[in-house]
Parts: sequence; C-alpha cells; structure tokens
Amino acid sequence: MTYSYKYPRAALTADCVVFGLDDEDLKVMLIQRDLPPFEGTWALPGGFVHVDETIDEAARRELQEETGIKTSYLEQLYTFGDVDRDPRERIVTVAYYALVKLSDHRVKAASDARSAAWFSIGDLPTLAFDHKKIVKAAYERLRGKVRYQPIGFELLPNRFTLRHLQHLYETILDRPLDKRNFRKKILSMDLLAELDEVETDVAHRAARLYRFDRKKYQRLTKQGFNFEI
Amino acid sequence: MTYSYKYPRAALTADCVVFGLDDEDLKVMLIQRDLPPFEGTWALPGGFVHVDETIDEAARRELQEETGIKTSYLEQLYTFGDVDRDPRERIVTVAYYALVKLSDHRVKAASDARSAAWFSIGDLPTLAFDHKKIVKAAYERLRGKVRYQPIGFELLPNRFTLRHLQHLYETILDRPLDKRNFRKKILSMDLLAELDEVETDVAHRAARLYRFDRKKYQRLTKQGFNFEI
Repeated sequence: MTYSYKYPRAALTADCVVFGLDDEDLKVMLIQRDLPPFEGTWALPGGFVHVDETIDEAARRELQEETGIKTSYLEQLYTFGDVDRDPRERIVTVAYYALVKLSDHRVKAASDARSAAWFSIGDLPTLAFDHKKIVKAAYERLRGKVRYQPIGFELLPNRFTLRHLQHLYETILDRPLDKRNFRKKILSMDLLAELDEVETDVAHRAARLYRFDRKKYQRLTKQGFNFEI
Repeated sequence: MTYSYKYPRAALTADCVVFGLDDEDLKVMLIQRDLPPFEGTWALPGGFVHVDETIDEAARRELQEETGIKTSYLEQLYTFGDVDRDPRERIVTVAYYALVKLSDHRVKAASDARSAAWFSIGDLPTLAFDHKKIVKAAYERLRGKVRYQPIGFELLPNRFTLRHLQHLYETILDRPLDKRNFRKKILSMDLLAELDEVETDVAHRAARLYRFDRKKYQRLTKQGFNFEI
C-alpha cells in the first residue's frame, strides 16, 4: 500500500529537547541512533508524526517510546525546515522542549532498547542532523523564559530548599546570583509555601523545605502579577 | 505524475499574519478566498510549501504573490497541527507574523487577483480555517515582544514624531501611557536620533521628527543593554 499525491511532500517529524537538572548542572537527554543515517550518533528523541495525531501528541508519544519519559511540561519551540537538514529526503521537524524532574527519570530503559542518557548542556557529544542548532534554540528559550515565568519549578523536586532554587537559576542563567537579593526577591513574590520540614541526609545544617504554590501563582497572574527573576 | 509514499503524509503550508499601523489602530491584512473550502471568506495570506524551498521562503513567496508585500520583518510564530483544521485533508501550517509600514502598502493589487484588504484587529470578519486562533496567537506575541525588543519601529515610517511612537505603543498594548513618563523612558534609552526636521501638513504645532538608530541599538545590545517599555 502506498499513498500518492500530485506534488511531492515533505515528511513531518517532532523532536524533543528534554531538560533536567541535578546538583551539578543542566542536562539534556539524548538517544543513540541505531539506524542510518548518523548510526551510532547521539540525537534528540523524536520521530514521524502520524497523519491522524496532532504534532503535540506525536512529540509526547515519541518521547515516551524512546525514553520512557512522561512530561507535564512540553512546549512547542520552533519548526526547522532547511531543505537539506536530513540526508534521506525533505523532512521538516517541529521541535519541542520539555522540563522534567531529573530525580524521577534516572535513565529508564527505553522501550525500543536504544540507549538513552543525560548529557551536560555544556558538554554535549556530536549530534545528528541539525540537532545542535535545535538544542541551542531550546536553551535560549529556556533562559529567556525562566526569568518571567515560574517554569523553573518543573525542574525541581516538589519540595526544595532556597539553596536548590538559587542553584537552579544560577545554572540556567549561567551566572552567580547574590544570595541575599535572590532570597528577598523570591520570597517577596509570595509564591512559595514554607513547609514544616527540613531537608534530611545532609552534612551541613538542614535547611527549610518549600514548595511552589501553583494555585496562588495563577490567582496572582489573573490580577496582573508578573513573575520576574 | 504523482508522488508515492509508504505512509500517508500531511500537506504543509505557511500562513502569515501581516500587521500594519495607521492613525486609528492596528490592522491585519486579509485576502478573500476565491476557491473552496471557505470560498468568499477572508483568510490569512499563505499557501503550500514547495518541497525545494525553506518554510521561510514559502512564507515570503506566498505573501508577495498574494498581497504584493515584501517585508523586512518576518518571524516564525507557531506551527498549527490540529488533525481536522482543514476540511480537505490533513494540512499542517507553519504560521508567521510580519510587520510592515502600512503607508508603503496601501492595498496593492494582488498578483493572483484575489482581493486583499486591511482590517482592524478589533473588528475582524469571520476567518477561514483556524485563522482566528492564529491571529490571536500573533497578536499576543506582538504585544509581548514590543515591550522588550524595539520591533515596533518596523510599523512606523522611517521618520516619526514622539506622538506617533506613543500612539504605536498605546495601540498595541491597548492602554493609555503617561506622556511624560513615556518620553522620559524612550529618550533615556538613547536609541532615537533627533532630526533637523519637523512634521509638515499638520493643523497643530509641528513636532520634531526622529528616526530609530538601529546601529546604536545593536551596539548597546552587545554591551548587555535591554530595551524595555
């Protein structure tokens, strides 16, 4: 069975830049290709969009098939359509980026048995296709967006210390932040709920745990509040 | 001649939301469809992406063919891929938005003889397909972006008064701005070159003309300057 059209058509794929954060730095999940082209090279998880699914659905499906990841935060990034970006034929890809709590996704075995691994954003291997360009665009979007929307919390465990939160912003923005100013700013926005718990299993003095109050944020946003770091 | 593929493929189009500004308000250019589906209904200029051109090239080509507009500012907005967004078959569209100096584009005859016209953003006719959703997304992007990038100047003549500039921001942001504060803010950014000319043919006292200093802006941006209204 084949499908025929009057004019030649590009194939359509969805690719996904998955960001995770650990104690060291910001990481991106890559999978190693087991088929040509670029066999053995690392690439973004992704694949062909079925004709009966939306592009968002395709992105989520491919992500889960290839990495086992179900993400709550997935956003369309940009559509990459250079004519020769794939050596096989004309393939247009709609790129997404996802934010996950890395602690929940310590490299699960991918269902199709390709190897998947986290790489530091600053130390990526050679990537297949134009995926380097896509990762760069996703990182720029993330850096821009964390400053005016509280999406950073997607990368943290549900309960976190202010030190963790500052580490998150310092890592993504790639510059040190003044501890006093940072705490003052973040607490003044009144978006964190202080918990009756402190962190455990730490060598230093255990710090207070907080959680992000999403409902409060939505309420404040409706009133015209702007998140800003 | 037909082109055959193993799996069914979506068709790919590029559609464009063209914004212009006049003394009254923000306008969008629409064309009236002369073929089904939605025959006679207004729609965004756009059309099919050829397999040997980039999506950006397709957007520019369609825009020029259908409206005669060559724009310097064209930016990809979002890719719309709802399965049933076109009654003919699965068609995915990459949407763009363009900013033009409306005075340069007083409805030129379109090369393919479809009628093209400017409509106020607040008073659009019924639109074909999901084009209403696309216009809404483009307007939100524009409103967000004018505040932190000096793209508004693309909508003004090369020489403009501060009154024109304030009108632009008030129209796009849809709220009045304090004249004194606005002028102080915009002049303090030092991005405008004051010209040795005043406006002509006005009933009120002729005001000073300015132009946007793009080179200076680029120089300042490299130094870490952030435009902000």
